[in-house]
Amino acid sequence: MSGPFSFRLISTDGTARLGEIETPHGRVRTPAFMPLGTQATVKGMYPDQVRALGADILLGNTYHLMLRPGPERIAALGGLHWFMNWPHVILTDSGGFQVMSLASLRKIEERGVTFRSHIDGASYELTPERAVEIQTMLGADIAMQLDECIRLPAGRHDIERAMRLSLAWAERCKRAFEHAPPGRALFGIVQGGDDPELRTVSARALSDIGFHGYAVGGLAVGEPQEVMLRIIDDVVPLLPDRHPRYLMGVGTPDDLVKAVARGIDMFDCALPTRNGRHALAFTRFGPVNLKNARHADDWRPLDEVSPCPAARDYSRAYLHHLFKANEMLGAMLLTAANLSYYLELMTAMRAAIAERRFAEFAAATKEGWENGDIPPL
Amino acid sequence: MSGPFSFRLISTDGTARLGEIETPHGRVRTPAFMPLGTQATVKGMYPDQVRALGADILLGNTYHLMLRPGPERIAALGGLHWFMNWPHVILTDSGGFQVMSLASLRKIEERGVTFRSHIDGASYELTPERAVEIQTMLGADIAMQLDECIRLPAGRHDIERAMRLSLAWAERCKRAFEHAPPGRALFGIVQGGDDPELRTVSARALSDIGFHGYAVGGLAVGEPQEVMLRIIDDVVPLLPDRHPRYLMGVGTPDDLVKAVARGIDMFDCALPTRNGRHALAFTRFGPVNLKNARHADDWRPLDEVSPCPAARDYSRAYLHHLFKANEMLGAMLLTAANLSYYLELMTAMRAAIAERRFAEFAAATKEGWENGDIPPL
Repeated sequence: MSGPFSFRLISTDGTARLGEIETPHGRVRTPAFMPLGTQATVKGMYPDQVRALGADILLGNTYHLMLRPGPERIAALGGLHWFMNWPHVILTDSGGFQVMSLASLRKIEERGVTFRSHIDGASYELTPERAVEIQTMLGADIAMQLDECIRLPAGRHDIERAMRLSLAWAERCKRAFEHAPPGRALFGIVQGGDDPELRTVSARALSDIGFHGYAVGGLAVGEPQEVMLRIIDDVVPLLPDRHPRYLMGVGTPDDLVKAVARGIDMFDCALPTRNGRHALAFTRFGPVNLKNARHADDWRPLDEVSPCPAARDYSRAYLHHLFKANEMLGAMLLTAANLSYYLELMTAMRAAIAERRFAEFAAATKEGWENGDIPPL
Repeated sequence: MSGPFSFRLISTDGTARLGEIETPHGRVRTPAFMPLGTQATVKGMYPDQVRALGADILLGNTYHLMLRPGPERIAALGGLHWFMNWPHVILTDSGGFQVMSLASLRKIEERGVTFRSHIDGASYELTPERAVEIQTMLGADIAMQLDECIRLPAGRHDIERAMRLSLAWAERCKRAFEHAPPGRALFGIVQGGDDPELRTVSARALSDIGFHGYAVGGLAVGEPQEVMLRIIDDVVPLLPDRHPRYLMGVGTPDDLVKAVARGIDMFDCALPTRNGRHALAFTRFGPVNLKNARHADDWRPLDEVSPCPAARDYSRAYLHHLFKANEMLGAMLLTAANLSYYLELMTAMRAAIAERRFAEFAAATKEGWENGDIPPL
């Protein structure tokens, strides 16, 4: 069940793809959603619980882990899988995105980026070579190239500069990755903002360099959904068919369905876990805010047919109470319920692709969301 | 397995007792430790997890639940057992203790106590009759009389006044409890501070009134352990033999062993859960502070032979990291590990009483604590 990295395309339905990634720590069924294990933990969840909900793969954040507890420490302790008690597949990002969004005094140069930690102000440097080295020390099954992700809207000049820099870093990451233990994978990241021409340049150049997989970066940074979908439509045909495609930082359940329809194989996003901690549930009825007073006396569960105990075995009144009373169990239950919903959605999409009924599935799912929550008691 | 309240004394070893309480929601093996389910949740724990650790009974706090979400609401939702997804035994306190420690503008009169909520300043009244009514609405298998608990040291006059008031309230609670559904139990509470004479008056008067069980209150409020043990020694012989004895709000593992040796059957305490949330573990090696830097690189678990996954399957380095990074999972794991340790201790004490080797068990356990934590790597 585990071996060197490989990707197998099992079947397609239109542009949507069903596949399987093999890695040293096991198999990932695609399309896949990766819960965030930011600081070596999926916030509020036991690792075996995340597994039981159906996750094949977690995402670890290089930026957070390089600051605390440090990659050398994790390596000395046997790597991130062992450290966080997750013996399954791990993808790590390169740290670039969080450096841009969290660190202070950052300075981006050709050589790399220097910044100060948001925790204690200590200085760090992250170069393409160091990003690969850290991810190698962490033991990631899938590592990401260092890139520069800029916020949209931005001028063409800035977008092009960041895209070219990301390409140069992509080559250096690939070279640095030659020293990584065998069997692991490195993904390149397509940049180019909302400019189709720059996206094309980036996608073609990355394909020429050659990676184990290709990510579409720089999206879900504030642009409208149409812009994101248009870019996916532009980029996907330019990426080599026999490698997984990963849409970074996306998205809502609706984003996921539309991106899978366009040929995306992998996703990560903070929404299910972060919203879960703030009483917002994702369900087959669409979003449900458990802080709303309409739930205070509602004996019904969030979703009586959910396979997730958190959604099925506790009343809405109880969930409402837990959030009003600031009890940890509220965040624990809704995080589990949301991840469960996301992972069920991926399972359902995989089944729909296998049975070549993805369009019908997408329409029925959308209808469920549009019908809205069950009526108040 | 469930029926009307009853207590069966199975065997004794010196003053230590092994017993079994029967209730409408099942059996409680004594000596028993009751985890706190303050706001209808054991903080940071799933209810089925608390059960799996070996808890037979939880404690619910009348003060917290009367303010939020309100006993009428919980009753309309089917009672506290159903509300919090705990189909096993529940004891509720009377609310008196938290009124004294948390509420503002409280005024104690013969009739009852009026106070303002610490949440929103709203006014409430708690009388003996209302305390029984609330606990009945919550559906508690075991309810407690309303009492006045005063902080030590205090003058004899104040202690006596509070003790006499508590006695008057005990009678009124017993009368009010006549309307409770059959099978449920009401416990009286011995007060009298550190004054043996007043404690004697209180214990005798309560025995004359007649309750299903007897608590020793007003301890663990700042007095030295010797004072507490002396009072237990004074009071226990005055209590009817065929009823359970509950030492309220106690204590450390050492307190528990010493109180069981003196004939106490039931305990509740915030220490294992509260300390767990603050990185302090209770173990067979004594207390271990996981925030201490000595654990930062320690690959060893908290206790490799623990039956609790939280204590056995995660490294000290990882636990240390989780607390440094303010991750919920740290509190979740150490709460579980601490409750597990407390519940294992109760199981071990019950076995030792059954086998009439309690003194040896207590000495060996104390030796383990005194030997201290495993040496640093």
